[in-house]
Order: sequence, then C-alpha cells, then structure tokens
Amino acid sequence: MVGYSMNKKDFQDRLRRIEGQVRGLQRMIDEETYCIDILTQLSSVSAALRAVGMGLLDGHVRHCVTESIAQGHGDEKVEELMAAVGRLAGK
Amino acid sequence: MVGYSMNKKDFQDRLRRIEGQVRGLQRMIDEETYCIDILTQLSSVSAALRAVGMGLLDGHVRHCVTESIAQGHGDEKVEELMAAVGRLAGK
Amino acid sequence: MVGYSMNKKDFQDRLRRIEGQVRGLQRMIDEETYCIDILTQLSSVSAALRAVGMGLLDGHVRHCVTESIAQGHGDEKVEELMAAVGRLAGK
Amino acid sequence: MVGYSMNKKDFQDRLRRIEGQVRGLQRMIDEETYCIDILTQLSSVSAALRAVGMGLLDGHVRHCVTESIAQGHGDEKVEELMAAVGRLAGK
Repeated sequence: MVGYSMNKKDFQDRLRRIEGQVRGLQRMIDEETYCIDILTQLSSVSAALRAVGMGLLDGHVRHCVTESIAQGHGDEKVEELMAAVGRLAGK
Repeated sequence: MVGYSMNKKDFQDRLRRIEGQVRGLQRMIDEETYCIDILTQLSSVSAALRAVGMGLLDGHVRHCVTESIAQGHGDEKVEELMAAVGRLAGK
Repeated sequence: MVGYSMNKKDFQDRLRRIEGQVRGLQRMIDEETYCIDILTQLSSVSAALRAVGMGLLDGHVRHCVTESIAQGHGDEKVEELMAAVGRLAGK
Repeated sequence: MVGYSMNKKDFQDRLRRIEGQVRGLQRMIDEETYCIDILTQLSSVSAALRAVGMGLLDGHVRHCVTESIAQGHGDEKVEELMAAVGRLAGK
C-alpha cells in the first residue's frame, strides 16, 4: 500500500488539471501572449505541482514512514525522506 | 513581437514534453508507484517547468525590457519584471 | 532532548560562520561592491542557512518524530513537520 | 555608482537585523529550543535575506542594467543578470 492510496482520485484530478494548464501554456506561446502573462500562468502551474508534491509527501510520512518506524526499521526511510524533501525544496 | 518569438518551437517542444511527464505522473499514481519515486519524477517536472520560465524571462529581458528602456520608458517594465522574478523565485 | 543535541557545536559553528557572512554583506554594501557580486555572496549565505535548516529537520525527524511515532502519538508531530517542510520549501 | 547607492542605509539596517536574527538562532540552539521553533525562525531569516536580494536586484536592474542598455551595450549585463536571478531562484 502506498501513502496516497486513499486519495488517488484527488491526486489524479489535480494532475489532470495541471496537464490542462500545461496545454494552456502551449496555446499561449502559440498565440504569442505577452511574456509576463505566460510567466504568471507558469508560476501558478509550478505552485499547483508543488502542492501535489507536498500532498504526496504528507501521505508518505503519515503512512509509509510512520509504519516503518513503528516496526523499528525507520532509519533508511528517514534518509530517503530527507533526500526527497531536499529535492522538493529545490536544492 | 514577444520576447520568445525566435524560439516558439523550442518552447512548444519543451512544454509538450512537460505535458507528457505530467501524464506520466498520473500513470504512476494509477499504478500505485512508490511515493518517493513519484516525488523524484515530480521534482524533475518542476525543474523543467522552471527552466522554461527562466528561458521566457531571458527573452523578455533581452527584447521587451531592453527595447522599452532604449525608448526611454523602461520604468514600468522593470516594475513588472521584478514582480515576475519574485513569483518565479517562489515567494 | 532535542533532535540536534548531538550536533549542537556543529550547528553553532555553522551559524557563527553565517553571522560572519552577513557582516561581510554589510561591508560589501559599505564599500559599494558591485551589485551582482553581493547577490552571489547573498545566494551562498542563503544556501548555507537552508543547509542548517535541512540538518535541523533531519535531526528532528530522526529523533523527535520517530520517538513520538514509536510511542503511538505521531500524528500531531507529522502535522507540525509538514508545515515546517512547507515553510522551508519557501511557500 | 552602484544600483543601491540611494538605499545603502536601508540595506545596512536590514542586514544588521538579519545578523541579530542569526545570533538569535545560535542562542536558540544553545538553549536547546524545540527544533520546529528554530526552523520557523530560520525560515523567517531566509525570507528576510531573500527580500534583501530582491531589493538589490531591483536597484541593479533599474540603474546598472538600464544604463548599460541605454548606452547600447546591455547584452552582457542581461547575461549576468539572468545568472543572478537563477541563483536567487535557488537553482
């Protein structure tokens, strides 16, 4: 079982919306929309994607990491988690 | 003319690739891929999106902003630019 | 006990170094150093600060969170942790 | 002349405040303050530092870059600017 099992539909919906927004960006390029307006839209896609990442991370900590720790072998999970946080934090 | 006129095809290609990656994320959710593997992929989509943003910003400064400044009315462009940089920098 | 008990000296040293770097930034302003050179230095101070944050987070997860989970009351710790990760990730 | 000439005192004040906050972080470590409270404080120092960076960038664009462009040799300034933006955006 994965950490997001209970929310698969929610994550799918959000990613589908993001996919539509990325297509919207292509359309904006196609129609030669003003650069700054595209950048504003792009920042909002980025934020939506980051929110999905935070949601997945939340489920992962609540389920996978918690379970591993409760079973006494949390160490490598924590290692892995911190690496993922570092990547999400954009470093 | 917009700042990315010369590179429309390049930006379209990159956004199409990003769109494909977002669909890939949906598939990963669907197949209940391990959370951390999805997060790794999501971080790489984020980075690709940010790179498109930086590219658009570059063209915007090189063309739109430069032109406005050369014509002596750069002030509001700079204002607008700094706001866009702030949003991209994720604040 | 806090998550960074074992590494207090290490964190103190790093923060003392960061303090010195911030004083260095003041000196650069004072001497009217070229803007971009100050920005480069400032980005490296930011990165050092973020690394301290990641280190504290790591210790916190390894000790405080792990302990709370092992004792069966990890839930609010996870809540609190995710909020801290969100702030560190700059949202 | 540098882009922040008119605001030297303001930047000095802000950096002095940041320096004090970094010393505050050391004190928190010393007193074994709860990890999450330190992280909250650290995030606010990061935000203050980033705001100084954005302020310097703003002055740089408004003065140095604008002047270079008006004089017809803006190209390398734009190159340099985009690299600085990329570093500030944390990539």
